[in-house]
Amino acid sequence: MPPIVLTTDFGLSDAFVGVMKGVILNINPQAAIIDLTHDIQPQNVGQASFVLGVNCPYFPPDTIHVAVVDPGVGTERRAVLLVTPTAKFLAPDNGLLSHVLKGYLAALPEPSALESAARPGHIPLPPGLTAYALTNPRYRLNPVSNTFHGRDVFAPAAAHLSRGFAPPRLGEPVTDLVWQPPPEPTRRGNELVGEVIYADRFGNLITNIPAAELPAGDSNAAPIMVAIGLRRISRLSRTFHDADADGDSLIALIGSNGYLEIAVPDGSAAQVLGLGVGAPVRVWGGSTGSP
Amino acid sequence: MPPIVLTTDFGLSDAFVGVMKGVILNINPQAAIIDLTHDIQPQNVGQASFVLGVNCPYFPPDTIHVAVVDPGVGTERRAVLLVTPTAKFLAPDNGLLSHVLKGYLAALPEPSALESAARPGHIPLPPGLTAYALTNPRYRLNPVSNTFHGRDVFAPAAAHLSRGFAPPRLGEPVTDLVWQPPPEPTRRGNELVGEVIYADRFGNLITNIPAAELPAGDSNAAPIMVAIGLRRISRLSRTFHDADADGDSLIALIGSNGYLEIAVPDGSAAQVLGLGVGAPVRVWGGSTGSP
Amino acid sequence: MPPIVLTTDFGLSDAFVGVMKGVILNINPQAAIIDLTHDIQPQNVGQASFVLGVNCPYFPPDTIHVAVVDPGVGTERRAVLLVTPTAKFLAPDNGLLSHVLKGYLAALPEPSALESAARPGHIPLPPGLTAYALTNPRYRLNPVSNTFHGRDVFAPAAAHLSRGFAPPRLGEPVTDLVWQPPPEPTRRGNELVGEVIYADRFGNLITNIPAAELPAGDSNAAPIMVAIGLRRISRLSRTFHDADADGDSLIALIGSNGYLEIAVPDGSAAQVLGLGVGAPVRVWGGSTGSP
Repeated sequence: MPPIVLTTDFGLSDAFVGVMKGVILNINPQAAIIDLTHDIQPQNVGQASFVLGVNCPYFPPDTIHVAVVDPGVGTERRAVLLVTPTAKFLAPDNGLLSHVLKGYLAALPEPSALESAARPGHIPLPPGLTAYALTNPRYRLNPVSNTFHGRDVFAPAAAHLSRGFAPPRLGEPVTDLVWQPPPEPTRRGNELVGEVIYADRFGNLITNIPAAELPAGDSNAAPIMVAIGLRRISRLSRTFHDADADGDSLIALIGSNGYLEIAVPDGSAAQVLGLGVGAPVRVWGGSTGSP
Repeated sequence: MPPIVLTTDFGLSDAFVGVMKGVILNINPQAAIIDLTHDIQPQNVGQASFVLGVNCPYFPPDTIHVAVVDPGVGTERRAVLLVTPTAKFLAPDNGLLSHVLKGYLAALPEPSALESAARPGHIPLPPGLTAYALTNPRYRLNPVSNTFHGRDVFAPAAAHLSRGFAPPRLGEPVTDLVWQPPPEPTRRGNELVGEVIYADRFGNLITNIPAAELPAGDSNAAPIMVAIGLRRISRLSRTFHDADADGDSLIALIGSNGYLEIAVPDGSAAQVLGLGVGAPVRVWGGSTGSP
Repeated sequence: MPPIVLTTDFGLSDAFVGVMKGVILNINPQAAIIDLTHDIQPQNVGQASFVLGVNCPYFPPDTIHVAVVDPGVGTERRAVLLVTPTAKFLAPDNGLLSHVLKGYLAALPEPSALESAARPGHIPLPPGLTAYALTNPRYRLNPVSNTFHGRDVFAPAAAHLSRGFAPPRLGEPVTDLVWQPPPEPTRRGNELVGEVIYADRFGNLITNIPAAELPAGDSNAAPIMVAIGLRRISRLSRTFHDADADGDSLIALIGSNGYLEIAVPDGSAAQVLGLGVGAPVRVWGGSTGSP
């Protein structure tokens, strides 16, 4: 039986998450429930999309992800199930699934064609994916509150799916989803310009620059240069211990999700720099030369 | 096998909760353990009573609730098991079970008769319920510490119950429990006067005024008016997005537990108002006219 | 199947812990995973060692502990599995297992002989224990990141062990481990001098003075005196409610882990005293007389 994995902005200080688990167990007493995190910044759909997207590949096949960051709860926004070849995702249709969808888009020969075919702010489902609106009242709690669909709509849907329900039983098929793609780094001459998209508890600043896009080094290459705020970092470190010699040991390295990351060993880059999500990051050098 | 659900003020920063789970698994390796919340405000028995009471109906039949907010740990206060037709509750006998008991009292023809029959500060068990003091030393850890009965008394009791133990094996029957009923809203002329009894992580202020007691609206009715602090809210919203036009969008709505709630969409009512638990809330209007 | 118990400094605000569970379930879908705590102070290996050491005896036989506080992640420090007669421990080899090892040392006729036989900063394995370096690439994720061995090395090892893998499959045997023994109280005349080694969420200050080393009281004995900061406490309390009469009710008692603890009932000793980890604590009196 595949696990149910919860990602929300509900925090753990109230009983929101606990009662969702109660609802799930009430429908499927055998369900295995895992928390990915419940400390998504309140209402930050983009952060939830990133955290879900980079971590879902580590879960077992057919995992049922429930991701609820839902500023529009109770409005006309759809509640949806997205079915991919490797997992199921239950979420409000507000862009939260964009990072997951991006991976399937990237595999297409002409992703931009798909984007341009869509309703504004939406994207048609890439081939091989299906999606459903959670409209079947039989598989919601009764009544459904206007403010807590995590408990009343998403938790019951996850529990039914984990018992083996076919996705179409939960509601009508949908053909597109809200699309709020994560920011992509851009090239400006020899520079790659990205931004910080996540700051973790240790103050590490994770950027949207994937390792694969970094300038390659070779024996004749100039060192890689990274600029953030007023600071420059003149090489890539391999580990948190592989620090430069300067005072506060600001380093750049490839983080565990495969993105360029700015860190201070045994310290907080966020504090040292006074920077956070949205801060621009520039990279140049390597075999591409100076900017 | 019914799940074991934990509600405490232990927080998650220490190992208190983790070690309770160790004790449970040591006795019943198959136990399914769920956290309702561990962030009850330290020593706030009333808050624990509310959180447990409003959320326990969502859990599977025969769920074993362990609720430990226990300022009197190690003193003569009893540790008890309350058995209802739908669930079991393990808790210190300090009023924590009052909200659960209230539901059974409300179903009686003459609840006040039961209240008046009791020792001061206590209530006899309503018909259909049984309770036991957790006095049997065989089903506690040995030794029992004076400061951590969550680990040494309640966790073992829960584990034994989840294996199918008959409740009387855990100790002597008791006939009453400590009664600290949650505050009830009162009527003053056409006004209903309640108070804030819970503030959640989003700053929503949950009152003790149930939806069923709100003045009914009809086509000739005056709008419902809600007053909190120096502010008036002139209607009930349906969702967090259904805001009034004024600057900080203070709204009143029926929250997901069925109580009147004061909120600021995408903001914190607690911060905007500078108010929290205990703040008075008045409601009038609807078919009851002005106050 | 023994449970897997996680202890880290990863916090719960990011997805670090959640994704470790994903990796575990991917390898062993039946695994039961418990959190001991994830709020070890960042990089505080000594605190993790204490928390793991005092709580592991409460878990079922053969529990698989995964403890990751790992400032040296990605460097040459070893990742190890320690196998004891009652449990398995996966951790970086940085002293984190010292508190667990201490219990086995204490049982030896000549513990100091073992200490002196070791490489500097290391200790040979006490008799009856075995250990392995987690070097077998087959049982790590591929690739292994340089910054998150919790996910890439320790979680897979735990999952394989929980499926019944023999420990030697995970890598080469090791014969010693890094040894950073917890501070021990010392005797100075009639005084026992220890220190605060842990402050919990309630502000209770837990010392390194075990109950067994406290001066015994008898009918002719002077009262036990405890000194911390500028304050003296003139007796041992039994519970948090058993307070002295003075203003802020500072008390000393034996805490639930068997160590002398300084507390303020319904308050925080850490705040009242302005003291925390490292603060010296002196004890005298009882049958040992005055200092």
